[in-house]
Amino acid sequence: MSKATSIMAKNISSVGEFGFIDLIRKRMSTSGSVLKGIGDDAAVVSLSPGKKMLLTTDMLLEGAHFTLTMPPSGIGHKAMAVNISDIAAMGGVPKYALVSLGAPPNLPLDYLLKIYQAMDKTAQQYGVSIVGGDTIKSSKLIINVAMVGEADEEKIVYRSGAKVGDRIFVTGRLGSSLKSGRHLTFVPRLKESQYLVKHFKPTAMIDISDGLVGDLGHILKESRVGAVLSEDAIPRYPDASLKNALYDGEDFELIFTVPFKQAEKLKRIKMPFRFYEIGEITDQERQCSIVGKDGVRQKITVKGYTHF
Amino acid sequence: MSKATSIMAKNISSVGEFGFIDLIRKRMSTSGSVLKGIGDDAAVVSLSPGKKMLLTTDMLLEGAHFTLTMPPSGIGHKAMAVNISDIAAMGGVPKYALVSLGAPPNLPLDYLLKIYQAMDKTAQQYGVSIVGGDTIKSSKLIINVAMVGEADEEKIVYRSGAKVGDRIFVTGRLGSSLKSGRHLTFVPRLKESQYLVKHFKPTAMIDISDGLVGDLGHILKESRVGAVLSEDAIPRYPDASLKNALYDGEDFELIFTVPFKQAEKLKRIKMPFRFYEIGEITDQERQCSIVGKDGVRQKITVKGYTHF
Repeated sequence: MSKATSIMAKNISSVGEFGFIDLIRKRMSTSGSVLKGIGDDAAVVSLSPGKKMLLTTDMLLEGAHFTLTMPPSGIGHKAMAVNISDIAAMGGVPKYALVSLGAPPNLPLDYLLKIYQAMDKTAQQYGVSIVGGDTIKSSKLIINVAMVGEADEEKIVYRSGAKVGDRIFVTGRLGSSLKSGRHLTFVPRLKESQYLVKHFKPTAMIDISDGLVGDLGHILKESRVGAVLSEDAIPRYPDASLKNALYDGEDFELIFTVPFKQAEKLKRIKMPFRFYEIGEITDQERQCSIVGKDGVRQKITVKGYTHF
Repeated sequence: MSKATSIMAKNISSVGEFGFIDLIRKRMSTSGSVLKGIGDDAAVVSLSPGKKMLLTTDMLLEGAHFTLTMPPSGIGHKAMAVNISDIAAMGGVPKYALVSLGAPPNLPLDYLLKIYQAMDKTAQQYGVSIVGGDTIKSSKLIINVAMVGEADEEKIVYRSGAKVGDRIFVTGRLGSSLKSGRHLTFVPRLKESQYLVKHFKPTAMIDISDGLVGDLGHILKESRVGAVLSEDAIPRYPDASLKNALYDGEDFELIFTVPFKQAEKLKRIKMPFRFYEIGEITDQERQCSIVGKDGVRQKITVKGYTHF
């Protein structure tokens, strides 16, 4: 029996916790700045001097964020990419990840390894090393990724800096991410974010996890401003209604604001990606409205997906 | 109705995800090096220049590591302290924590807040700031803590440096941690670890999560050496048998090795803590034996608690 076949026939119980860790350890790639990865009490890594550290974490749970009928490659990609997206939403560069796994003992080992392979592939693609983690037994599959990134202090973009008159942009089309399966294959907007903080001065930024209106709402709250959106300008997928584009979660596009002058330049850039201007910041604190195709302006409720 | 009473009557559903995050955000303390804590896509923190970063994570699950009949203060303490213990086991100083919480919607809010209060109290006591996290709905309570620490590169202690002839020490009494409830109240050995790396040169170190023999086994494996222990010298609690002291998990004492000459000094130090010499490193790779009260040397199996 080949090694691949023997792994496919096994579940995590049959190799045990430390057998599983050894399998993972052999398969994960690390970069030169990792002094010690998986296999000690903590990982040891370097951070560039003079940079600030960014820290984020996301927990995915079977039943809530994915089901076992979904491809393991998508689940692994998502677990890593949602954290990369958070680091990108701050204007930073992701560097290191810790993976905590809760796994049902009878889950096929092959399924778990495919999740890790996907996590590692996505991690590598964005310059991230998986340096450690924890593995426990649970009744449902749980994946928690914690990520460390870095950024120049003056380039970090918070949610709190949007100013009246700033233009609001998104990095891509919105809506129906869960229904279409795009939430398992989305591209975290790291390139876009790096381009932005290098060449422009975004005043606020966030990634869309809870829905356009919900996440824009966080910017409005933290920046103490309001927003008016233009229905026509909101880019959406063919399978997404306006409602989907406004309220669906898990698009993982970035919403950001820039001063008017920069907005004019931004719309004209020639790059392999595109920024869509969708509206403007107003002085009506935490109020959001939308101008329809008919030119009529309507208030919209600032709320997004909430887990409870 | 007072604010405290109103919180006690609520569960997490009644305040919602963002209501809950706001409650936590107000209650968590942060230090001066935290530029941005809870409330953006990622936390922004500083790390001392020239230091190496240590990264660790531990996931605690209702049913496996604790039950809801246990005091929330103990659960919160444990979730934080197990990570502090991992950083201490590397010779580092813990700095920042991210907390991911999976919570059943009907769990009393008061119970959750008590867990966070305990996490924050323990964090503060050891100089750690809780800077972010994630909150999701789950059927069982899940707490994942990821921690960042720092250390001078030359002071980091791995599992892999033990040499033949080194003496083996532990930082405290062992055994029956789960049965006695001590796993909820243990003291992570940060002071001891800091004293050690400042004044001595430990060759290998690990904390006891899987049991003395199991975790010593990791040192033996990584250092390619063996060990002989002395039954008489192993400190144990009055409620713990030798078997408990050797094999029980979750003591969270440190096991470390030092060269013979340093061992002689270590045994004579006058400090508010004590190091117990329990044996010696041998050249018999991955073999462990114990000398009984009767002077007879017996092989012991190197295995510890495993989750699968």
